Amino acid sequence: MNAFNFLTPQRTPKAGTGITMMLDKGMGPVFLIDLLEISGRYADLAKFGWGTSAIHNRELIKEKVEIYHSYDVNPYPGGTLFEIAYSQNKLEEFLDEADKLGFSAVEISDGTIEISKEERMEIISTVKEQGFLTITEVGKKDPHQDQLLSPEDRLEMVNRDLEFGADLVLMEAREGGKGIGVFDNKGNVKEDELQTLIEGTPVDKIIWEAPQKVQQAYFILKLGANVNLGNIPPDEITALETMRLGLRGDTLGKVNLG
Amino acid sequence: MNAFNFLTPQRTPKAGTGITMMLDKGMGPVFLIDLLEISGRYADLAKFGWGTSAIHNRELIKEKVEIYHSYDVNPYPGGTLFEIAYSQNKLEEFLDEADKLGFSAVEISDGTIEISKEERMEIISTVKEQGFLTITEVGKKDPHQDQLLSPEDRLEMVNRDLEFGADLVLMEAREGGKGIGVFDNKGNVKEDELQTLIEGTPVDKIIWEAPQKVQQAYFILKLGANVNLGNIPPDEITALETMRLGLRGDTLGKVNLG
Amino acid sequence: MNAFNFLTPQRTPKAGTGITMMLDKGMGPVFLIDLLEISGRYADLAKFGWGTSAIHNRELIKEKVEIYHSYDVNPYPGGTLFEIAYSQNKLEEFLDEADKLGFSAVEISDGTIEISKEERMEIISTVKEQGFLTITEVGKKDPHQDQLLSPEDRLEMVNRDLEFGADLVLMEAREGGKGIGVFDNKGNVKEDELQTLIEGTPVDKIIWEAPQKVQQAYFILKLGANVNLGNIPPDEITALETMRLGLRGDTLGKVNLG
Repeated sequence: MNAFNFLTPQRTPKAGTGITMMLDKGMGPVFLIDLLEISGRYADLAKFGWGTSAIHNRELIKEKVEIYHSYDVNPYPGGTLFEIAYSQNKLEEFLDEADKLGFSAVEISDGTIEISKEERMEIISTVKEQGFLTITEVGKKDPHQDQLLSPEDRLEMVNRDLEFGADLVLMEAREGGKGIGVFDNKGNVKEDELQTLIEGTPVDKIIWEAPQKVQQAYFILKLGANVNLGNIPPDEITALETMRLGLRGDTLGKVNLG
Repeated sequence: MNAFNFLTPQRTPKAGTGITMMLDKGMGPVFLIDLLEISGRYADLAKFGWGTSAIHNRELIKEKVEIYHSYDVNPYPGGTLFEIAYSQNKLEEFLDEADKLGFSAVEISDGTIEISKEERMEIISTVKEQGFLTITEVGKKDPHQDQLLSPEDRLEMVNRDLEFGADLVLMEAREGGKGIGVFDNKGNVKEDELQTLIEGTPVDKIIWEAPQKVQQAYFILKLGANVNLGNIPPDEITALETMRLGLRGDTLGKVNLG
Repeated sequence: MNAFNFLTPQRTPKAGTGITMMLDKGMGPVFLIDLLEISGRYADLAKFGWGTSAIHNRELIKEKVEIYHSYDVNPYPGGTLFEIAYSQNKLEEFLDEADKLGFSAVEISDGTIEISKEERMEIISTVKEQGFLTITEVGKKDPHQDQLLSPEDRLEMVNRDLEFGADLVLMEAREGGKGIGVFDNKGNVKEDELQTLIEGTPVDKIIWEAPQKVQQAYFILKLGANVNLGNIPPDEITALETMRLGLRGDTLGKVNLG
């Protein structure tokens, strides 16, 4: 039972909607357990950011992956590591190692490389067949390259990935949340572009990377408490959940819990 | 005994002046003990930010509250939670639960709601009679609303709350410290407005929310080592104390320790 | 063995090049062990920032210093504490206490005070003779004062300190990385000034303070994976190492590992 439970509205976490994806930049296991013990109920996915898992001891990664599972959080290696494996023609070894380490999801991205539509379709199939929760990402890491994508391009990519069998699609914003995807150089939402995506895609399949608090508040006010949000700093999981529930000034009395 | 103790000036923490209020956004208990073991001597108050305590397990909140007490830090639930309780006509249950959880202070604020002077006076009395350290807050969470308050309005509110019996008054700045209260949109101090408050109020009863380092340095240089400061990120408690003591470049040789 | 070890390039940490200096602002020992257990291989030096060590319990500081040594990280007290000791004519006691606490390096700086060339030479000799790794710092804490130093001044100071016997020279940037040393007020690198320093000094003896991610990426792309970087926030050690190795979008496929 929560403290002050008579005051707070209800939301069912871990229900496949209102997904919170946290960005793990290399926490130690003691801190991780401490964090999940108090707030793990409110996290659904944990990304081991970019290539971080590849410079940590194998046993420690396995330990952390187990910790995440014990709190019902789906851990997965960052998309950049996938891209490195793909570029080195080691996709099979990558998926095999991800499985051995206990990861239950895989992200397929092309933030720094080029992958043809045909190859992308094939990779999505392969990853899905091997039993991973299959997450794709739309967007480029380099703002200059990313800005070459029109809202219509992104819309098409989202829908195609879902057709190919992806379970969820991430909208790239990186750790900073500026100048990428639906955010301008100051981190503000480009409303027209967002609207295009909302109208043309199944929004409950999109996870919006939104590292900054104002971005999270924006999405909650726009799309409701159960919007899917990603790249959340671990120590902000609690703060995000309070915003979803209207327990913080930014969303108090203004959030649609439906 | 401190390391290098022959080098450092003296200040008596926990003396009712030079209050440091830390903002707890939902830390786990293991991290909390580790932090307080090294720096808990320099914290007086701990705010469980906004509604965060209401989404955590009751037993965990009780555990954290006990940890704070064991380091002689006064814990209290955030003002937003008070406002939610007040709006739902559950003030009595709120105070009862706060007491059962072990909280020793209560914050009374109107950052997102309206409370009449008469009601405010009554609430302050009630909270005080129930034995809580009684802290009020002056300011609005929404910058547009907050900017409608003149320095004279704030001055009057501070003095009225103290007359009504408040022990301490918080000057709102939120977690960000921008565009609210005495800070402009860039987080710089509006010196004229501050001066009005300094001249017209008992400054030792005001806790200035000052989340940013430059803001903390400003107040220390302006009002001395024993100025009351709030919304300090937990991992900045040590840094703040060094600035109070002139052990950091920003205040070295320039701080009034008297 | 690392996870995904078949994917990643090689770099030999703790080899005296590619130094990573982390900034410890007062972490507790439990968190420190947890952090070093997962990423301590990638840290060479740990600065107990400015005067922070002087307000913590002596036994706790000794414990933390031992923890650092057990992970082969060289701990040292901040330059500001040295400056305070020097100003109080307590250099001998300072070095004695640093030794007793187990610190194995000492930083000699003049960020807030004036020290003549002759005195600086003498201090460097004394510190070296006592067996400490001897690190000097070039730059002022106050941006206005710091901007009075020309690139040629800095170049001369670096080379003189090395002649006097310093093992390493820090290029000051503080915790913020703005308006100091080679960074302009926005934190961007002043390329001409940097070029002067690169051409006129033994770059492998300089540690560039670079607290921000974009600054770290800049130096890695400019000077290679094994550039020496300092003032790294502890929870960014892993992220920095991935950038050195081209395992993050910012440096992927662009970093010189030679």
